[in-house]
Amino acid sequence: MRIDGALVERRLDELYAIGDRGLYDSAWATALDRVERWMKDAGLETHRDAVGNLWGRAEGSGKSIVTGSHIDTVRNGGRLDGALGIVAGLTAVEALLKNKGKPRRPLEVVAICEEEGSRFSTNFWGSRAIVGAIEKPDPEIAAAMRERGLDPTTIASAARDDIDTFVELHIEQGRVLESARTPLAVVSAIVGTAHLEVTVTGQPDHAGTTPMDLRRDALAGAAAMVQAVESIAKSLGKPAVATVGKLNVEPAQINVVPGRVVFTVDLRHADLGGRRALEERIRSLCSTTSEERRLGLAIRTLQEKAPVAMHPEVRALLARAAQDCGVQATDMVSGAGHDAQILAARCKVGMLFVPSIGGRSHCPEEATSPEHLELGTEVLAKALELLAY
Amino acid sequence: MRIDGALVERRLDELYAIGDRGLYDSAWATALDRVERWMKDAGLETHRDAVGNLWGRAEGSGKSIVTGSHIDTVRNGGRLDGALGIVAGLTAVEALLKNKGKPRRPLEVVAICEEEGSRFSTNFWGSRAIVGAIEKPDPEIAAAMRERGLDPTTIASAARDDIDTFVELHIEQGRVLESARTPLAVVSAIVGTAHLEVTVTGQPDHAGTTPMDLRRDALAGAAAMVQAVESIAKSLGKPAVATVGKLNVEPAQINVVPGRVVFTVDLRHADLGGRRALEERIRSLCSTTSEERRLGLAIRTLQEKAPVAMHPEVRALLARAAQDCGVQATDMVSGAGHDAQILAARCKVGMLFVPSIGGRSHCPEEATSPEHLELGTEVLAKALELLAY
Repeated sequence: MRIDGALVERRLDELYAIGDRGLYDSAWATALDRVERWMKDAGLETHRDAVGNLWGRAEGSGKSIVTGSHIDTVRNGGRLDGALGIVAGLTAVEALLKNKGKPRRPLEVVAICEEEGSRFSTNFWGSRAIVGAIEKPDPEIAAAMRERGLDPTTIASAARDDIDTFVELHIEQGRVLESARTPLAVVSAIVGTAHLEVTVTGQPDHAGTTPMDLRRDALAGAAAMVQAVESIAKSLGKPAVATVGKLNVEPAQINVVPGRVVFTVDLRHADLGGRRALEERIRSLCSTTSEERRLGLAIRTLQEKAPVAMHPEVRALLARAAQDCGVQATDMVSGAGHDAQILAARCKVGMLFVPSIGGRSHCPEEATSPEHLELGTEVLAKALELLAY
Repeated sequence: MRIDGALVERRLDELYAIGDRGLYDSAWATALDRVERWMKDAGLETHRDAVGNLWGRAEGSGKSIVTGSHIDTVRNGGRLDGALGIVAGLTAVEALLKNKGKPRRPLEVVAICEEEGSRFSTNFWGSRAIVGAIEKPDPEIAAAMRERGLDPTTIASAARDDIDTFVELHIEQGRVLESARTPLAVVSAIVGTAHLEVTVTGQPDHAGTTPMDLRRDALAGAAAMVQAVESIAKSLGKPAVATVGKLNVEPAQINVVPGRVVFTVDLRHADLGGRRALEERIRSLCSTTSEERRLGLAIRTLQEKAPVAMHPEVRALLARAAQDCGVQATDMVSGAGHDAQILAARCKVGMLFVPSIGGRSHCPEEATSPEHLELGTEVLAKALELLAY
């Protein structure tokens, strides 16, 4: 089925022109109104749930087939992250209704209110509401909800248990597809993540008067650990990744041997065993290094998320939809988190990735070629057809 | 000759009680007034030169024998750095005048106005004035001078060409003497220092979506360089030292591969060849690492100071003075800078070090045992006797 690629582009442009969208802020509200108008124009019945997720529905029987993504953006974000999943889902459903008529099953498009941690210290806010995983909002979010006319005491009503399958089209946000010259991927799993904070304690000393053999240099020790984080991830092989993104030195004077270093480790793997092996090796190496160098060591877990496998039936269906559109999709692991990983608790989930030019994301340079955007939307439409018709 | 160790301690206590002394601030002025009173009480004729160095003189013929140190302190500094050289010098000269009478040569004690960079972005301010190396003060310092009644247009008049020898007692500020259980050192040279600023440029990338083999991680590269700085200094052997004291990561987000790292290198060696070899090896290693990792590299020299050898005659005389006091002094290189290295441009210079407990310095914990303080003062007095009587 032919998709109007130009329409997808125009809608993405319109949302991008609204600017960065933080949960419940005015740009967020403007964007949601715009999407609601498009949904109505496409013949969908719309409603907003208790946290502000916007749903557009074409009636059918049984549990729903849902597509969509998040409407919020990071600060100084790009044109596609989240927005693409909503626009492509809406445009695909619109084309299906026009060309194939009323679906057999209920077919829905959702603009999820928040995923990015875009404004408050939360994330997956919308999808967590859908799976009934929010107990009570913190006061700051509750106040922002009230300002938007939402009642925080009714959040539980946003939970859905009538979704059969959720499929989401997203940009890859990395360079894997571009490097492999592959236009499309079916996601096999979303990685599990652990965030560690490592504190290395040595002794601050005069850089001139302290011979090398009398030092307990926290930064020299931390540097050995940073090196090890990289080499352990490499040696474990794909899809293991590990990153030291922050590192602070004290006292941070040019002529003082560092007495204390605090750095973070972000480590990810597609299966729990792999993620644990990665973490254990890193912890063990840090421990050995600190002992050899007579340094203090403390490791704190800041955050842990288990990996989530996409549903095998949905993966197979997405692969078939790609083939029907004349494309051989590759399998890949998502290194970033997505709403699908939350929704997996309540329904079958699957994701499609289109390439990111230069791997750029979460910045204004975020881009995907028009052909890839059109192809992704076309395969999404085919998958929704296979699921709902 | 017997030195009153308790008097040395009391005077150090009095100066310490005044608090941190920044160039030309009120604590600085109070401390200088106190020292001037002690000088007068000891029978010295005092005067202040154009930058505020305070001189106390016992007349004699020919060029002067001078001892002393700087009156300023670092912020949150200790009791001994600088202060010891002034108090010990004064107490030694006082004892000589009392016990040995009028010296053959002019014998002077100097409280140098500034060495530490304690208030303005300058250092060796007092000793540079003495050797005539200050062309024009910057406006901020000139204003502070006027507030103290000093005329910045007359700085050139502070220059001295009538000093024969300058000897300074100082704390070691490291753990070398303590580790070796040695009570006293004769300094052989003050190290040459270079300060480098190294900028490593990679590519900021999503920590989840960028496989290890597609990264250009500025911090992983910088960590390899930090490791190399340490191992090169170790492999060159003493007295080479090299330190990475500051390191800043951008964008410093837990889930973003670092795109840029800027770090400093402080490297020191007692001879110019050694210092250059150290610097060349570090530069070459950074260059190799950046090429291997496809990283950008820029190295900027922030500061360079040549090593300064102590005068062989003064070294021999200080060693003899120690022997006369029943102590075998060790030779050692000073890893820190001292006024003697500036004064070396105009006169013979030599230094004595006493041990620092735990190597602590530039902090309130800075300490030396009373026996070592007394011994250092006694050897200084003997050296001044050998030189001036």
